[in-house]
Amino acid sequence: MVIDAKIKLTVAYDGSEFYGFQKQREEPTVQSVLEEALSRINHARIFATGAGRTDSGVHAVGQVVCFKPEVQIPVKNWPKALNAILPGSLVVKSAQVVGENFHPIRDAKYKVYVYYMKTADYLSPFERRYVYRVPVELDVKGMKRAGLRLIGEKDFASFQVTGRPVVSTIREMYQLGLRREEDDLIVMKLIANGFLYKMARSIVGTLIEVGRGNLTPEDLDDILNARDRRRAGPTAKARGLTLLNVQY
Amino acid sequence: MVIDAKIKLTVAYDGSEFYGFQKQREEPTVQSVLEEALSRINHARIFATGAGRTDSGVHAVGQVVCFKPEVQIPVKNWPKALNAILPGSLVVKSAQVVGENFHPIRDAKYKVYVYYMKTADYLSPFERRYVYRVPVELDVKGMKRAGLRLIGEKDFASFQVTGRPVVSTIREMYQLGLRREEDDLIVMKLIANGFLYKMARSIVGTLIEVGRGNLTPEDLDDILNARDRRRAGPTAKARGLTLLNVQY
Repeated sequence: MVIDAKIKLTVAYDGSEFYGFQKQREEPTVQSVLEEALSRINHARIFATGAGRTDSGVHAVGQVVCFKPEVQIPVKNWPKALNAILPGSLVVKSAQVVGENFHPIRDAKYKVYVYYMKTADYLSPFERRYVYRVPVELDVKGMKRAGLRLIGEKDFASFQVTGRPVVSTIREMYQLGLRREEDDLIVMKLIANGFLYKMARSIVGTLIEVGRGNLTPEDLDDILNARDRRRAGPTAKARGLTLLNVQY
Repeated sequence: MVIDAKIKLTVAYDGSEFYGFQKQREEPTVQSVLEEALSRINHARIFATGAGRTDSGVHAVGQVVCFKPEVQIPVKNWPKALNAILPGSLVVKSAQVVGENFHPIRDAKYKVYVYYMKTADYLSPFERRYVYRVPVELDVKGMKRAGLRLIGEKDFASFQVTGRPVVSTIREMYQLGLRREEDDLIVMKLIANGFLYKMARSIVGTLIEVGRGNLTPEDLDDILNARDRRRAGPTAKARGLTLLNVQY
């Protein structure tokens, strides 16, 4: 019997119900809950590798997770089999067979994150888990100009929270756009070939400082050059961030 | 000191976090949580009257609640004062002064409910609390035709779950529309001068039976005439229902 080399799953989750993606000893994480479900179906200990280790509170619409099956199941049946035992806060949207050498982080061409923030007096009960409320008006034009200064291949050391060793702090930012939607909602979209630890939220927090008038768009150049996390703005709240998709 | 006659609040809540609107002895309900917050601010026992006693799991974007204040606060400050102590699942959106004789149920011209359902293999983690999943395809055109038969002044006894005594089971339905949106989402909108106990969900459940092909649009006439709850379809799940607004 030939068993598929590897299966690539696209999964969505509500980050407010997990202690982040990465496995931990005690608390339920996306990885641990998924591995438990996979192990049950495969009747064997299964390890799942994700495309990005989203933090506690960060959501995903299109996270990618990869595993090596021990049982032969038609690939299109994997989502149904897993969703039958997973909690509603974690859903497998699709599955496809990939080669033995496929790696969800190494082979990713780019990742797309979105951040939702709102300059309103209150958040509705339906958005409070997914939106960060900024209690002051923001200069969105200034934030857009600041964002443009981060486009291209840059050293993002100033936007990295240390704790995870990396070979290089250079990443290429393809897009960093902001748009204002109805009801004071501001949506920030970040597309890069990779993100350092808490990089997306550090960029958002820094651009919010620009929006508040505490930094100028031009300051972004100095912050990049400093290669010092203390020069950038605070790390924005996790709840506003969603991993939209990973492109291969 | 003149104290405002009555204050009318417009509130939103996530029904999945309350045991319905109406006060109960033990469990947290919208009314009990709101009365507790109002009593704290007013330094007196405050009673709040709602425009509709939504069931456990039913959401509201524009529920109306009325109370008689015991302290003098500028009316525009009530939302801020209340939101500072209410949980994030219950938000006061606005406040206005109304006359001594205002009654949120009696004076309502009409109420607008929406029901979200989806014919999909799974619900995303972000919509599972607000959408009802129907695991089969639905004939939306047939459902629309069935809905038209409920428009006008009708006796809705067949769509009432008994348990609450009412003077009359006649209500006037002004609008009952369905539209299919992207991603298999079907949105049903119901506008009437009043709704009997579980009437909106009984109508939705019955129209779903039409959509499944178990009832024809023409059957709706017989169901109305029967004045018998057993003739209509099942009561649709609470989670798909939202009280959108109450018009005065």
